[in-house]
Amino acid sequence: MEVTRRNFKESLNAVYSALEEADFLAIDGEFSGISDGPNVSALTNGLDTPEERYSKLKKHSMDFLLFQFGICTFKYDQTKSKYITKPFNFYVFPKPFNRTSPDLKFICQSSSIDFLASQGFDFNKVFCQGIPYLNQEEEVQLREQSEERRHQHANGVGTPSFISPSSKGPAHVPEEHKDFINRVIGKVDALLTNSEKSLDLDPCTGFPKGIHVETVETEKKERYIQVIKVDDEERKRREQQKREREQEELNDAVGFSRVIHAISKSGKLVVGHNMLLDVMHTIHQFYCPLPEDLQDFKEVTMCVFPRLLDTKLMASTLPFKELITNTSLAELEKQVKESPFKSPQVETAEGFHSYDTAQQQLHEAGYDAYITGLCFVSMANYLGNAHDRADPTFKTLFLMRIIDIPYLNVTGPDLQPKRDHVLFVTFPKEWKTSDLYQLFSAFGNIQVSWLDDTSAFVSLSQTDQVQIAMNTSRYAESYRIQTYAEYVKGKHQNKEKLGQTPKSWGEDGWRKPHYASATSAATFGYPRYTRAAGLRKRSISPVQGEQGSADAPVTDGWSNYSYPDSAGSKKMKTDGVYSACSHTADGFRDSMCSG
Amino acid sequence: MEVTRRNFKESLNAVYSALEEADFLAIDGEFSGISDGPNVSALTNGLDTPEERYSKLKKHSMDFLLFQFGICTFKYDQTKSKYITKPFNFYVFPKPFNRTSPDLKFICQSSSIDFLASQGFDFNKVFCQGIPYLNQEEEVQLREQSEERRHQHANGVGTPSFISPSSKGPAHVPEEHKDFINRVIGKVDALLTNSEKSLDLDPCTGFPKGIHVETVETEKKERYIQVIKVDDEERKRREQQKREREQEELNDAVGFSRVIHAISKSGKLVVGHNMLLDVMHTIHQFYCPLPEDLQDFKEVTMCVFPRLLDTKLMASTLPFKELITNTSLAELEKQVKESPFKSPQVETAEGFHSYDTAQQQLHEAGYDAYITGLCFVSMANYLGNAHDRADPTFKTLFLMRIIDIPYLNVTGPDLQPKRDHVLFVTFPKEWKTSDLYQLFSAFGNIQVSWLDDTSAFVSLSQTDQVQIAMNTSRYAESYRIQTYAEYVKGKHQNKEKLGQTPKSWGEDGWRKPHYASATSAATFGYPRYTRAAGLRKRSISPVQGEQGSADAPVTDGWSNYSYPDSAGSKKMKTDGVYSACSHTADGFRDSMCSG
Repeated sequence: MEVTRRNFKESLNAVYSALEEADFLAIDGEFSGISDGPNVSALTNGLDTPEERYSKLKKHSMDFLLFQFGICTFKYDQTKSKYITKPFNFYVFPKPFNRTSPDLKFICQSSSIDFLASQGFDFNKVFCQGIPYLNQEEEVQLREQSEERRHQHANGVGTPSFISPSSKGPAHVPEEHKDFINRVIGKVDALLTNSEKSLDLDPCTGFPKGIHVETVETEKKERYIQVIKVDDEERKRREQQKREREQEELNDAVGFSRVIHAISKSGKLVVGHNMLLDVMHTIHQFYCPLPEDLQDFKEVTMCVFPRLLDTKLMASTLPFKELITNTSLAELEKQVKESPFKSPQVETAEGFHSYDTAQQQLHEAGYDAYITGLCFVSMANYLGNAHDRADPTFKTLFLMRIIDIPYLNVTGPDLQPKRDHVLFVTFPKEWKTSDLYQLFSAFGNIQVSWLDDTSAFVSLSQTDQVQIAMNTSRYAESYRIQTYAEYVKGKHQNKEKLGQTPKSWGEDGWRKPHYASATSAATFGYPRYTRAAGLRKRSISPVQGEQGSADAPVTDGWSNYSYPDSAGSKKMKTDGVYSACSHTADGFRDSMCSG
Repeated sequence: MEVTRRNFKESLNAVYSALEEADFLAIDGEFSGISDGPNVSALTNGLDTPEERYSKLKKHSMDFLLFQFGICTFKYDQTKSKYITKPFNFYVFPKPFNRTSPDLKFICQSSSIDFLASQGFDFNKVFCQGIPYLNQEEEVQLREQSEERRHQHANGVGTPSFISPSSKGPAHVPEEHKDFINRVIGKVDALLTNSEKSLDLDPCTGFPKGIHVETVETEKKERYIQVIKVDDEERKRREQQKREREQEELNDAVGFSRVIHAISKSGKLVVGHNMLLDVMHTIHQFYCPLPEDLQDFKEVTMCVFPRLLDTKLMASTLPFKELITNTSLAELEKQVKESPFKSPQVETAEGFHSYDTAQQQLHEAGYDAYITGLCFVSMANYLGNAHDRADPTFKTLFLMRIIDIPYLNVTGPDLQPKRDHVLFVTFPKEWKTSDLYQLFSAFGNIQVSWLDDTSAFVSLSQTDQVQIAMNTSRYAESYRIQTYAEYVKGKHQNKEKLGQTPKSWGEDGWRKPHYASATSAATFGYPRYTRAAGLRKRSISPVQGEQGSADAPVTDGWSNYSYPDSAGSKKMKTDGVYSACSHTADGFRDSMCSG
């Protein structure tokens, strides 16, 4: 169902009841751009920490507009043995509510706009018919303003609209207008004594108190004031009407945010594909400005989406990582139709647009949400328990292109892989990748993750060579090498100078959990999808221990070519701790594709 | 004529010949927003200096996109005694040329987008079919790159596309790909000896040198390499073809900028309504990034638009200021149809869309350009010499909402009105306009121009009261008063600290001209439109002297209400110098309208 400003109000009940009855729902967003700063490969450096990734996305992605939001609800019908789907495709635009409400500016990135244009995206639907919205703070502010105005009116103070917002004070009546104003006062006085019922003033502003006064708009959008002589009862009735109208206008202004509130309130499982940006944009646009700190972001996320599942992460994890070669949404959707998977049995609910996966409508948010849900059902069916309504809660979000941290753990601390085979190298800005290959040629295969023009992470294939590399660099003048630990320490010291608390590091190379919420202990660990444990429960294992690395994830699916050989990296898997290096082999790619 | 990416190339000749034959042309632009910082009333403070105004517009308006450009050419037909018009409406969008070309980001302002949407603006035409463009520097860069690639190719170095742009060096061939590459080399070697004519390689990259190699794209946008065995002559022919194709692609990328170059080259008079922002955007987008300094901007403007005329300024100037009450484009167009003006005789050229001014299509750039031209013709006809082809060059641009400097003089120094009745006041941020009125209540009527939350200009109606106001403020703690001269001096001292040259002030209150170009002396002064002198020549008068203020301009037409009484300000006209105060009375308004 396509929902714009024109049919939003009449569609709301359909949205609410779809959410109410759903077993789960899938979501997807389309944005006006991705990065207003670094290019995508710099924005998603393979050795970002979760904090760095979050803070880069917050800084460089949030000024774009989420302008299309797809929701597809899935409800299992026992008698038909199939899922009934209800896809919604919302167009969203921050149309200013009135002259004093915030006039939002957003960025468009030419390449993103051009890409959506090539997919047949309808920009007129966004800009001409997009549903408005307010975040929580704006909503509260607007309701307070309205309440205040009503209060002042009731006390006969005159509406604040009498005070021009830009002049910061009541208008000073200039000499040449005094005549005009006196004439208006005369007319209103006369109305009180003559037999007329009402008086239309000329298009202008300013009116005295004491009788019912309304601003009326002509068809030509000219506003004039209607002064109506009414008895007490009639006045109250009119004021009640006016208040109801105002309330409805306020609800209209809250607009699409009401849908997000309803999703939160439903507590239903929300599925998305590579959904970190979708979640960030949704919170930022419809709930509150994103917090500085990753930990606070996780808490807000738990408020807005109490149950989340990322199908890109699921597909990158055992047992699926061995069955699925490409985890981009379009490819995943094709693969889960074929053996060993089965196409899920689905049916579109009556009155809803029926998508045909043969005629791909990729990058329409409603369609993407629909096939994300299909992928989830196929994978869950493979595990044997998709429509078991028990709790398949995986509060983790896929972290695209990070070599050794596959996901963001929304309910607790993130994985902290050992990176003791990683060197931080600074060098003159003329250097290229080939210079680094040459510099480290004695140490076998390396991987280079560029940070900026004069620095990069270089991952050696064998940790025991780190010290040798450090030694040989001692007298070098043109470049400088630090271990990853030294680099992190330096960064923390900088942060401390800026008044931030340093994080403590455990002896085993994992960060000790600071976060003390009830759920943190239970979810600290890696979610393993196994046929036996199924979706109902994640097998929880402390990360310290052999089993931690047994089914460690990461097939990323965006690979075009890979640098290192896998022989070298396998030798490194010696300590039983979740191993950075076993993922490095297939996790290190360099490509522009995203999924 | 509507021009998009689809018909741009075949329309170019029509554009060129229309410019070639035109007597003058009118232009107009539509933007994705106006201000990304202060609201419009702060962006256009009534006491801005031209430098301040330019620098604010440069800072807060240039990240928006000029996405619709209207041109209407006017050619007088002697036999028909009417103007033949050719209106063009171009949609413009910075579609990236290729993966390595700049990926432009631009801002959209919700209120502007919503306004254009309400006027029926077609955003899909912009984003899906907009004509691309490059500024001069980007064009040069692209041509150099192309030349370099050709040169390398000719020398058998292999194209730089072999080097991935993000990896900053040649690809390091991983072990597992070596087999594949060896197979390709084998196939190419075989081609040289077998009877086949060409060889299509699998979608992939990398090829050896020595024979003609081309990248071919399938319908599905998959790129593969075609290796063709050719003799020397055939190879040269194919390379010539390839070069021509590249040249054409480059011209396509320069796109809409070619139209702007053609306007510049034509040297024709370019008319616009309130066109400062249009000129700034045009230069910024299609020519070069705007210079820091206003003086440099004027020089660039003279390069791009050697002859400019602003109809809003014309309508605000004698004799028109006494005939025209509202200078917004829509109102002006209505007024110049009626006595004492006459509707100009115009006819749309064959094959062009004929606009009907009864069915207003305001805010379509082509229509706005068309009626701007009509306004110019009507006003010029009133002066009796519109189709006299002599030079009606008025190199001045309207400065919206500045009280006492009506225009920017593109060919020389700007007017520097005395502002010795103006005080610069700083105060606690709680203060409102009413506090200022109270503070200065002893000094008669005042005008307040807000600068920010804690400062404003306050104009007294009588200059001789400035000293009294200064004296009474001596012991004040909560607020502080400076004369305008002190304020300017303080600003210059700050600038000097930052290494900028201070400007010298003449004794008469006007800035002495620094600018030494040949035209500066002749154009330093106020252009007076008189029936006798007509459009051919401006009567040039030094600004010092009685006549300077006699026909001084400014009716701004955006007034809803005005603060001061005019009695007070008239007393101030004592020194014969171009008087700030005579304009103040009707020039000081506060409204959101623009024209």
